[in-house]
Amino acid sequence: MLGVVIPLEDSKNKQASVKPLVDLTKADMERVNQLILSKAGSDVQMIPEVANHLISSGGKRLRPMLTLASASMFGFTGDAHIKLATAVEFMHTATLLHDDVVDESDLRRGKSTARMIWGNQASVLVGDFLLGQAFRMMVDVGSLDALDVLSTAASVIAEGEVLQLSVAKNMETTEDDYLSVIRAKTAALFAAAAEVGPIVAKTDKASRNALKSYGMNLGLAFQLVDDVLDYGGKAADLGKNTGDDFRRRQDHPCPSSCPIPLARPRSAASGARRSEGGESSDQNLEKALGLITRYGGLTDTIAQAQHYGTIARDALAPLPESPWKDALLEVIDFCIDRVS
Amino acid sequence: MLGVVIPLEDSKNKQASVKPLVDLTKADMERVNQLILSKAGSDVQMIPEVANHLISSGGKRLRPMLTLASASMFGFTGDAHIKLATAVEFMHTATLLHDDVVDESDLRRGKSTARMIWGNQASVLVGDFLLGQAFRMMVDVGSLDALDVLSTAASVIAEGEVLQLSVAKNMETTEDDYLSVIRAKTAALFAAAAEVGPIVAKTDKASRNALKSYGMNLGLAFQLVDDVLDYGGKAADLGKNTGDDFRRRQDHPCPSSCPIPLARPRSAASGARRSEGGESSDQNLEKALGLITRYGGLTDTIAQAQHYGTIARDALAPLPESPWKDALLEVIDFCIDRVS
Repeated sequence: MLGVVIPLEDSKNKQASVKPLVDLTKADMERVNQLILSKAGSDVQMIPEVANHLISSGGKRLRPMLTLASASMFGFTGDAHIKLATAVEFMHTATLLHDDVVDESDLRRGKSTARMIWGNQASVLVGDFLLGQAFRMMVDVGSLDALDVLSTAASVIAEGEVLQLSVAKNMETTEDDYLSVIRAKTAALFAAAAEVGPIVAKTDKASRNALKSYGMNLGLAFQLVDDVLDYGGKAADLGKNTGDDFRRRQDHPCPSSCPIPLARPRSAASGARRSEGGESSDQNLEKALGLITRYGGLTDTIAQAQHYGTIARDALAPLPESPWKDALLEVIDFCIDRVS
Repeated sequence: MLGVVIPLEDSKNKQASVKPLVDLTKADMERVNQLILSKAGSDVQMIPEVANHLISSGGKRLRPMLTLASASMFGFTGDAHIKLATAVEFMHTATLLHDDVVDESDLRRGKSTARMIWGNQASVLVGDFLLGQAFRMMVDVGSLDALDVLSTAASVIAEGEVLQLSVAKNMETTEDDYLSVIRAKTAALFAAAAEVGPIVAKTDKASRNALKSYGMNLGLAFQLVDDVLDYGGKAADLGKNTGDDFRRRQDHPCPSSCPIPLARPRSAASGARRSEGGESSDQNLEKALGLITRYGGLTDTIAQAQHYGTIARDALAPLPESPWKDALLEVIDFCIDRVS
């Protein structure tokens, strides 16, 4: 086994959980799930087949829960947040469908990817359909502010994915590049998901900015930890194999979606950067993991995640106490504790 | 040569031209071209490279000209139609980028496709970026009606592409299926492009419906003729080789994007429907073309295009006379005359 033991400085007695958020949003999430099924429907049979394969594959649906919570915490009770939460989940699902094509992935959440079953073509086009449906729901809500936030996120996410593609081929990728990628491809949607709640609740600008900052920094922490998990273990949690990202990208000397960029500047050795002929993927992976560990790649990545988690926590500080706020705060620890 | 001679019943003395529309929209199209360059820009260098490769490849930009004309004909002079025309062109460009990946195309408009130069990954992701930018421009315009029309078109286009994928694998594809595909994948965007003009010009509902019907029926005629051109000749006009769609799809017994569905119901022979072992692509193509011609596939397709052209013409009849109206009417003949 290639798992790496991660020393945690302050392991807690009680494991943080997403359960309080799940419980608080339970009734609304049932409405979201109904709307997902309805809006992924089409007379073209392949569309609900492909969409539901991914939608029903057991994702946590963290992003739509953020939208629901960030509207409900300001007393909102209409149905705009249901539609926007569904739109956010569709944007995420569309991104995953396209990502799996771009990354040539075989597995996601422990199941075959849609592209392995229906082909790359269907994955690209059903992703496009879901994105179109997401925009229709936003238009239906009728808030130009929410449309602005979410359409901007759509551009930024795609831009981040192209950046990832560019830096993956570049030896000179820096820690800044890596952070730019995860800020755009992951954190931007977390930020937008959390910001549209206060928008539909018509609350003040300060609250809107607080939720936006919470979402952005939570998203950064979430992705940093995800990347550590890909190298460090707990494969079962991710439904993919440890080192998958590395194996897939080992032709590229500097995988962008991994903690290597954080370790590399400190490393005098170049052995982790380029795979040498005659060695197996696993030998290369083991060597890379050794170097990443020696130069603190994983522990530093976790420290970074904790840093962003603290900013997310601080962002919510000015907001009045409520079960919603507590649940959102606990989600920060939940995201980071996945590596403990 | 595999070209087929198309007998035209009423060949005109004067070739219809897109030039009057080009001349009338010239100043506005310069503003659109500036906005295209600006909104396809990004610090991520690969994005403008990929986008501009396709954008500068010499398409006619018929769709944005429809938006400009359909706003200007009602006296609109702001900049909303510039933004919406650019958004329409971006939606079209995103579709082409994804189409080339889905169809595994090597050539478009006589040039290598983006996916041949930068890869499928970049084509998928830059397409996503352009779609995001398109929505941002629509949001910037601030018309929920225009957003509704264009976001619905985005869903319908993707749905049509998935339908095309499904029917391409189905022996029993009917003429209705074929028309559903081209209505969704092509005509829906022509309709939306023409409908958003009267929307931003804040004209009456009847004018809006007139332009929508004009665009829808023009789009149907346009795609029918495009498909005839793919089988019947004038390869230079399309920048691809005659029979490309057939060769690419000959594993599928019934290519959807071709006039075969119009010929097949009349054909007792099954030879055109399934490629037989031991024959070259060209032999199969020749056999298919023979059957399509014998059963009137191409001439009937042109007759259908003329039928939709007539509906498009009738749709504009109630509108006041103007150079704009004349130019839009001439575009109908221009689209159909391409096969003469």
